[in-house]
Amino acid sequence: MKKFSIKIYPENVELQAEENATLKDIFFENGIKFDFPCGGVGKCKKCKVKILKNNGFEEEVLACQTKVESDLVIDLQQREQKHHILNEGVNRQIELKPLVRKIYVELPKPTLEDNRPDWTRIKEALGRADLKTKVSLLQELPEKLRQSGFKVTIVITEDEILAVEAGDTRAKHLGMAFDIGTTTVVGYLLDLNTGKELAHVSTLNPQTKYGADVISRITFATQEIDGLLKLHREIINEINNLIAKATKQAGHTPQNIYTITIAGNTTMHHLFLKIPPENLAKAPYVPVVRDPVIADAKDLKIAINPAGKVFVLPNIAGFVGADTVAAALAAEMDRGDKIRLLIDIGTNGEMVLGNKERLLACSTAAGPAFEGAQIACGMRGAEGAIDHVFIGEEYKYTVIGEVFPRGICGSGLLDLVAGLLEVGIVDQTGRLLPLERITHEVGQKYKDRVVEIDGVRAFVLEENEATGQRIYITQRDIRELQLAKGAIAAGIEILLETYGARVEDISEVLLAGAFGNYLNPHSACRIGLIPATLEDKIKGIDNAAGAGAKFALLSVEEYQRAIELSQKIQYIELSAKNEFTSIFAKKLKF
Amino acid sequence: MKKFSIKIYPENVELQAEENATLKDIFFENGIKFDFPCGGVGKCKKCKVKILKNNGFEEEVLACQTKVESDLVIDLQQREQKHHILNEGVNRQIELKPLVRKIYVELPKPTLEDNRPDWTRIKEALGRADLKTKVSLLQELPEKLRQSGFKVTIVITEDEILAVEAGDTRAKHLGMAFDIGTTTVVGYLLDLNTGKELAHVSTLNPQTKYGADVISRITFATQEIDGLLKLHREIINEINNLIAKATKQAGHTPQNIYTITIAGNTTMHHLFLKIPPENLAKAPYVPVVRDPVIADAKDLKIAINPAGKVFVLPNIAGFVGADTVAAALAAEMDRGDKIRLLIDIGTNGEMVLGNKERLLACSTAAGPAFEGAQIACGMRGAEGAIDHVFIGEEYKYTVIGEVFPRGICGSGLLDLVAGLLEVGIVDQTGRLLPLERITHEVGQKYKDRVVEIDGVRAFVLEENEATGQRIYITQRDIRELQLAKGAIAAGIEILLETYGARVEDISEVLLAGAFGNYLNPHSACRIGLIPATLEDKIKGIDNAAGAGAKFALLSVEEYQRAIELSQKIQYIELSAKNEFTSIFAKKLKF
Repeated sequence: MKKFSIKIYPENVELQAEENATLKDIFFENGIKFDFPCGGVGKCKKCKVKILKNNGFEEEVLACQTKVESDLVIDLQQREQKHHILNEGVNRQIELKPLVRKIYVELPKPTLEDNRPDWTRIKEALGRADLKTKVSLLQELPEKLRQSGFKVTIVITEDEILAVEAGDTRAKHLGMAFDIGTTTVVGYLLDLNTGKELAHVSTLNPQTKYGADVISRITFATQEIDGLLKLHREIINEINNLIAKATKQAGHTPQNIYTITIAGNTTMHHLFLKIPPENLAKAPYVPVVRDPVIADAKDLKIAINPAGKVFVLPNIAGFVGADTVAAALAAEMDRGDKIRLLIDIGTNGEMVLGNKERLLACSTAAGPAFEGAQIACGMRGAEGAIDHVFIGEEYKYTVIGEVFPRGICGSGLLDLVAGLLEVGIVDQTGRLLPLERITHEVGQKYKDRVVEIDGVRAFVLEENEATGQRIYITQRDIRELQLAKGAIAAGIEILLETYGARVEDISEVLLAGAFGNYLNPHSACRIGLIPATLEDKIKGIDNAAGAGAKFALLSVEEYQRAIELSQKIQYIELSAKNEFTSIFAKKLKF
Repeated sequence: MKKFSIKIYPENVELQAEENATLKDIFFENGIKFDFPCGGVGKCKKCKVKILKNNGFEEEVLACQTKVESDLVIDLQQREQKHHILNEGVNRQIELKPLVRKIYVELPKPTLEDNRPDWTRIKEALGRADLKTKVSLLQELPEKLRQSGFKVTIVITEDEILAVEAGDTRAKHLGMAFDIGTTTVVGYLLDLNTGKELAHVSTLNPQTKYGADVISRITFATQEIDGLLKLHREIINEINNLIAKATKQAGHTPQNIYTITIAGNTTMHHLFLKIPPENLAKAPYVPVVRDPVIADAKDLKIAINPAGKVFVLPNIAGFVGADTVAAALAAEMDRGDKIRLLIDIGTNGEMVLGNKERLLACSTAAGPAFEGAQIACGMRGAEGAIDHVFIGEEYKYTVIGEVFPRGICGSGLLDLVAGLLEVGIVDQTGRLLPLERITHEVGQKYKDRVVEIDGVRAFVLEENEATGQRIYITQRDIRELQLAKGAIAAGIEILLETYGARVEDISEVLLAGAFGNYLNPHSACRIGLIPATLEDKIKGIDNAAGAGAKFALLSVEEYQRAIELSQKIQYIELSAKNEFTSIFAKKLKF
């Protein structure tokens, strides 16, 4: 059989491959990490790679569909991330005006007639008498100026000179934006000269091993010896790993980064800054700080240029953090007259309602059901998860990675319960009906799937005939989902009530985050997570928090907007509302 | 013989003393460090101590003159320093408004209806939305607030909260002002609630062991491995020693200090901040920074409260530093219509001329003659130095400490040469005349003091008959003095010329520093150091640099004035003036 040579960048390896092997096979056989979200059937189009031609042109192909017919050079820069995270944020045009800028100057050399101090020379060249700097810059300044013949690049924020680099280094001007989620940390390496994304990296939040949700992390931070320090170090180390990985991917070094922006929920925010989160978890749920925090990278041991700055976006309240601010920024909740509803559903459901005049936010303890936790066969939206289910005349489901299913994730659960409601297997109260009560014509077709498992009624989605292993949901799972959707639905209702608006006043429902993006709007409305009349107004906006962090990195005006949003968005403490319990109880019904 | 009990504070020791013993004797016998600048003859009035009476009153007495006639309690707080440094700065009334203030607040406790973040709660209590802080404060904030029941003292600068202390700590509010001289470092511990000086400490600048003057220090910093680091560490350690000593004396701890102000010449300034001084020593004499530098005490390893700030006063130019700015501030050179001349004579002579409209400054390389260096029998103004000489019909001299003389210091040298001119032993060209040319009637009386020593003509001041050791000045010494006075006199002339003023326009000549304070104005004018017509206008203003540093510490307005002075005072580079050499040559004559 004929063999061809395959060169792979950025790994910089050369392999031998057999004729007609797919790139997917080659990657698999040679241990090259690459994700095929749809299982390699050419459906999701996520496995795009670049084939570099001799003439300098590139061709983009799907790795799962492309067979080797000649020697190839392949560039994997664009490869998908390992985790099932949405890569694209909200896209909108912004004027590039980064938080940290680079200015190249050629200064007049000192003479007896002009022996101004080095620092004065720089400030006057920029025409800025008000600029501050650190002693450490002054310590290096005379050498930097003289080794470069007084031709230097000045790295500057709004009011401070961070560094003076010898020569013209404007071309190397990077920044990174991070969205620190409770579960996943995502980082974006951006070229601050062009706004272009050079790399996109992500990883599991390593704090997960000390607790899956924010409450368990707060408990660990508060009760364990050095608990806070441990959680802090975990996230700092992981951020540093991501910085190293992203810069390597892009062929740069962390030294070229002077700016980092950070979005995260209030707990992630506090842990990142080593600020005790204790009071977030107990009434009256007081954060230590809402304001934006600008820290020296050095102080936080963030491994970028030692003179760099970390801009931590502001929070709104204890359970509505900088991630919501960033999402609201990405979605431009501060623009327009129309009332819109932004929902970011995770362990908590954070919501922002309003328009440019007025914005309200609340957080509901939705519980982890939407993330697949505390569900009998639940799992996160990773390979092997049933992510969509169709129950009707026909029965079918889809699995992430198109493998044999290992469990069911949030969006699958939503579809499933919506379907079971539709075909009369689950009633309005959430009861998984006993066989004799299933009277719906279509529902009767599924009777054999309704069984008892460990004494609890359950509905079986799939059974592995070889192993006997079953994927199912139980009555208890349905109750979990009810609690979750009830909390969010009640939050929406109270927000609307406080705002003095009706459901029909909402012009758009923006769903941020992976779950929000993957869920089927019809199912969400069918189970009453979102008012039914809004079904056509639902729009997924991907990882909006990450997008907001990117915008803030690229533009000081966007950063300012984030601050204004954090101040403008009025927080509604649901637990302080007398009517919450009764509304929640009402919303438990499907 | 009757014995009495003597209690001594702050040493807190109890001694037995014989009736009629002087306090001086008691101190000496018991090893209690105390200086008697005039040797204990009741002349200098510098050995004042407080006797604490039973009724709570105090009586101030001279330790050298007071005999024990009863049990005594003595307070030595006011004791003189070991070095011959002037303790009193310029005294003037200022409004107490320190660079760092303390504000006590009782905050409302958080509730579900008011769950503002801790940091917001503090800012809003102060009514200051613009205040910044460090992450380290946020890390400690929740505990500080809750352990104190939300009653805290806020430590604040103009725009930043440095610390939050549990409870009401306003009473403990200290600051220190330092004058870092090339030779001597002086520190003042001030109570920022009252402006009162709690302690006054001083020491030899430990950098002296690496070089006596600024040029040799710059050479060391530039050419030795880790030279800059060594010099930097020496001064930081010594400052920390002085802080420890002063706070101990006053019964406080360094933890209670949040503010330090620093005045020093430009080289001392750079070395203190570990800023390379290299370019100060070579044309075109460029400092790295003129602006005030505000550094974190922690970053500089200054051992005060870790959240404290170091305010380093601004420079004017490479050879006119923050010490001159501080002296000009103390002397209020920025006030009044009358033209005044401020001179600080050390190794360099720094001068400021002008009034509130316009100020000029220059620095002349006077050389170390006025400090007694490079003079055959020269020494600093310490015990054993001849500090005043009278030659006329009578011959006499005074010695610091009233001991047998060990050498001659600057002010003595000045008197001596002035006297020798008067009695015709030295002529206008500075020549120490051969015996046959001494024709002046009075001068002839001193003929036997004019001798040859090692082949050079000399004038003998004193001879120890027992040892044969002589104290004398040589022709070479007189030449050194000529160079020094010529440089300063030329500086004065060029300043006046540049200013467009005449000698008679000067309303006052202010002499700062030890030498300036001790010199005999008549002698200074006789040798032409200062124009003769100004003799009655000469006024010593003690350690004006230290006084200025104290003012800046006590009042943010004084600190601002220091900044304005540093910007307003126009530096005249003498080496860039074509006429300097000819004027200097002319001024060499007596």
